[in-house]
Amino acid sequence: MEDQTIRVELTNSKKEKPDENHLEFGRVFTDHMFIMDYAEPIGWHDARIVPYQPLVIDPSSMIFHYGQSVFEGLKGYRTETGDIQLFRPEKNFQRLNHSNDRLVIPQIDEEFVLEGIKELVAIDRDWVPHTEGTSIYIRPFIISTEPYLGVSPSKHFKFIVIMSPVGSYYKEGINPVKIAVENQYVRAVKGGTGEAKTGGNYASSLKAQEIVEKEGYSQVLWLDGMERKYIEEVGAMNVFFKINGEVVTPQLNGSILAGVTRDSVIQLLKYWDVPVSERRVSMQELYEAHQNGTLEEAFGSGTAAVISPIGELRWNGEHLVINNGEIGELSQKLYDTITAIQYGKVEDPFDWIEKVNLKSKVNL
Amino acid sequence: MEDQTIRVELTNSKKEKPDENHLEFGRVFTDHMFIMDYAEPIGWHDARIVPYQPLVIDPSSMIFHYGQSVFEGLKGYRTETGDIQLFRPEKNFQRLNHSNDRLVIPQIDEEFVLEGIKELVAIDRDWVPHTEGTSIYIRPFIISTEPYLGVSPSKHFKFIVIMSPVGSYYKEGINPVKIAVENQYVRAVKGGTGEAKTGGNYASSLKAQEIVEKEGYSQVLWLDGMERKYIEEVGAMNVFFKINGEVVTPQLNGSILAGVTRDSVIQLLKYWDVPVSERRVSMQELYEAHQNGTLEEAFGSGTAAVISPIGELRWNGEHLVINNGEIGELSQKLYDTITAIQYGKVEDPFDWIEKVNLKSKVNL
Ligand SMILES: Cc1ncc(COP(=O)(O)O)c(C=O)c1O
Ligand SMILES: Cc1ncc(COP(=O)(O)O)c(C=O)c1O
Repeated sequence: MEDQTIRVELTNSKKEKPDENHLEFGRVFTDHMFIMDYAEPIGWHDARIVPYQPLVIDPSSMIFHYGQSVFEGLKGYRTETGDIQLFRPEKNFQRLNHSNDRLVIPQIDEEFVLEGIKELVAIDRDWVPHTEGTSIYIRPFIISTEPYLGVSPSKHFKFIVIMSPVGSYYKEGINPVKIAVENQYVRAVKGGTGEAKTGGNYASSLKAQEIVEKEGYSQVLWLDGMERKYIEEVGAMNVFFKINGEVVTPQLNGSILAGVTRDSVIQLLKYWDVPVSERRVSMQELYEAHQNGTLEEAFGSGTAAVISPIGELRWNGEHLVINNGEIGELSQKLYDTITAIQYGKVEDPFDWIEKVNLKSKVNL
Repeated sequence: MEDQTIRVELTNSKKEKPDENHLEFGRVFTDHMFIMDYAEPIGWHDARIVPYQPLVIDPSSMIFHYGQSVFEGLKGYRTETGDIQLFRPEKNFQRLNHSNDRLVIPQIDEEFVLEGIKELVAIDRDWVPHTEGTSIYIRPFIISTEPYLGVSPSKHFKFIVIMSPVGSYYKEGINPVKIAVENQYVRAVKGGTGEAKTGGNYASSLKAQEIVEKEGYSQVLWLDGMERKYIEEVGAMNVFFKINGEVVTPQLNGSILAGVTRDSVIQLLKYWDVPVSERRVSMQELYEAHQNGTLEEAFGSGTAAVISPIGELRWNGEHLVINNGEIGELSQKLYDTITAIQYGKVEDPFDWIEKVNLKSKVNL
C-alpha cells in the first residue's frame, strides 16, 4: 500500500448509545466505521474512517453470488482506569491474511490495519462500555465487490471494520451447555476452507445447529468430514477435554480454525505446568474416558464466551454427563485468568495486551 | 405468500445495449431487475420489477459475514421467429428450494417466481440478443440481509433476479479443454453443501482453479472429499465419460450439484437407447479405461457451455489424452440436439421449453 494515511470524516449526528446493562450481541453499531478499497492494479487504497452507513453495492457484485469473503472477530476491553485495550489483535490480522490466502483475496498490511482499528476505537471510545463483563466487539471483514457473474477471483474488494458494544456472555453466571455430537452434517473437511474464517463455513453450519436446537441442545460437536470419528470443533469454538489430568485439544489439521483463545489456553496451561497436547481425539476415546471416569472437564474456547464449559454430550443416543454438569476447576481458572488479563486486572506475562491510545489524532 | 401481484416501475433512462457480436459473460445487465423481500413473520412480500439499481445494505447484514445465500442460473433463448423461450426453468426453482432447505432459507413459491421472471424477460425483451449462439443469462439469487452479527439463520432476505445478455460460449468452435485432477483441495464433501447452489462452494473452489490455470489447465476435476478417489464434478459442471460404449456419470451422492443439463443429457441418451448409468466412478477406473483404450469420450455439462468436451486429463503426472483431443461424436450430437431444442430449431419431445409471452401486461 502506497498511501499510509487514514482520512477521517466524523459524523455530525451521533446515535444514542444503548443501555449498558441490556446490551445484546451484534445488533447495535457505533458511530463510525473503517473502510478501504482494493482494485487492480492499484491495490488497497483510500483508507478512511467515516460515519457508519449502508453500503451501496451493485446486485451483480461477487459477494452476493460466489461468497468470496473473510472476516475476523476481536474485542476491546475497558479497564478499571478507563483505558481501552485489545487482546492479541495481531493474531487476528495474521489469521485474516491466512484466510485471504485460501480465499484468493489480496493480503492486507497487518500493521496498518491494526493502526486503523485503534484509531477507530479511539474515535468511538465513548461506545466502549464500562459495566463488568462488557466490551466492544470489533468485526473486520473483506467482501468481493467486482460486478461480474463469472466464477473467478474478484478484482475489487472492500475491507471494512464495524464495532458493536456487547454485554457479558455470562450474565447469569457460567452455566455448562448441552452439546449434540453431529453425525450427519459436516462443517469442514481437509482440503476445504475449515481453517479459514470465511462465510461459507458458517452458512454450512446453520442446518445442523437448527436441528439440535429444536432438540434442546445449544450447539453441535463437529466431527471430521472424512471418517466422522475425530472431534474438530464445538459450534463456532475450539474444544478442549481434560482426560485423566491431561488437557487435549484436536490438532490443527487443516479443517479446524486456529482460535486465538485456543492458543492462549494452551500457553496458559504450559505456563502452569498442566500437561496439554494437541492431537487427534476420537469420539470413541472420549466415550471410553467417560465410561471409566477419566473425562474430567470439557469446554469450548472462543472470543465471544472465552471459555464455555460443556455439561453434557449426546452421542448416538448416549448422554455423557461431564463433571456432574458443572464447570470444572481448570475451566474456571482459565476463564478467570484470561478475562482478568483482558480487563487489565492482573499482570500480563505474555505481552498479550495492546493498549489503544485514546489521544486520537482527530478532534471529537 | 399472500399478495400475488408484481408491482412494476419502469426505468426512464434506458441503457445503451452492447454490440451483439462482442458480448462478454455477465458484465452488462439489462434495464430492470426483479426483487422481493422476506421478513418474519410476514414471509415473502413486495414483489416488484424496478430499474436495475445498486442495493443499499447495512454493513452488518449477514450476507457479508456468514454467507447465507443461494443462487441459480438459466438462460432465455431467441428463436428464429423472434420468440423468447426458457429451458426447463421449473427445474431451477425446484433446485433453488432444495438449496434453500440446506441453507435454512425460507422456501419460495416456485410458480410465482417463474411468472415474475417471465414478466421481467418480457419487459427487457429487447435485451435478448438475436445473433447465433447468444442468449440472455438469468441469475436469480437470495441473500440474507438481517443486520445482525450472530451466527444464526437470518430473519430477512432478498430474492433478486438480474439478467445479462451473453455471447456464444464457442465463438471459435468447440475446442476440448485440458483438465487437471485435483488432489489437494476439495470442493465439497458428504454432509456439506455440495448439492446446494450456494456461494461458499464457489469461494472454496477459487484456489485450486487459480493454481491449475497457471499451469495451463482450464479447470479442475474434483474428487470426493472422503477418499479422494471418486470423481465428482469438473469445474462448475457435471461430468460424463463414455467408456466402452456406455456413458457413465457420478451418481448424485450429496456432494454433487444436480445439474439441469446433466439430467437433460441422461434423458436424451435414454431416448436414443445409449446405455447410461449413474454410479461411482473412480479415477483409477478411468485411468485403466484409458490404458486399455476404452475411454472414448469425456465432457462436462452445464448451462453456460451446454457440453464442454475434455481433451486431456492430468493425473499424478500422467497425461490422459482422450479421443485424440477432439470432440467425440456423441458429445457433438448431445450439444447439437440440446442447443437445437433450446433455440426452437427442432421438436421438443420432452416438453422442456417454456415460452415467454411477449405481450407483457405493462406498456413499454
Ligand atoms: C469456527 C470457529 N472456531 C473457533 C473459533 C474461536 O476462535 P477465537 O478464539 O479466535 O475467537 C471461532 C471464533 O472466532 C470460530 O468461528
Ligand atoms: C457446481 C456446479 N455443478 C454443475 C453445474 C451444472 O448445472 P446446470 O446444468 O443446471 O447448469 C453447475 C452450474 O450451474 C455448477 O455450478
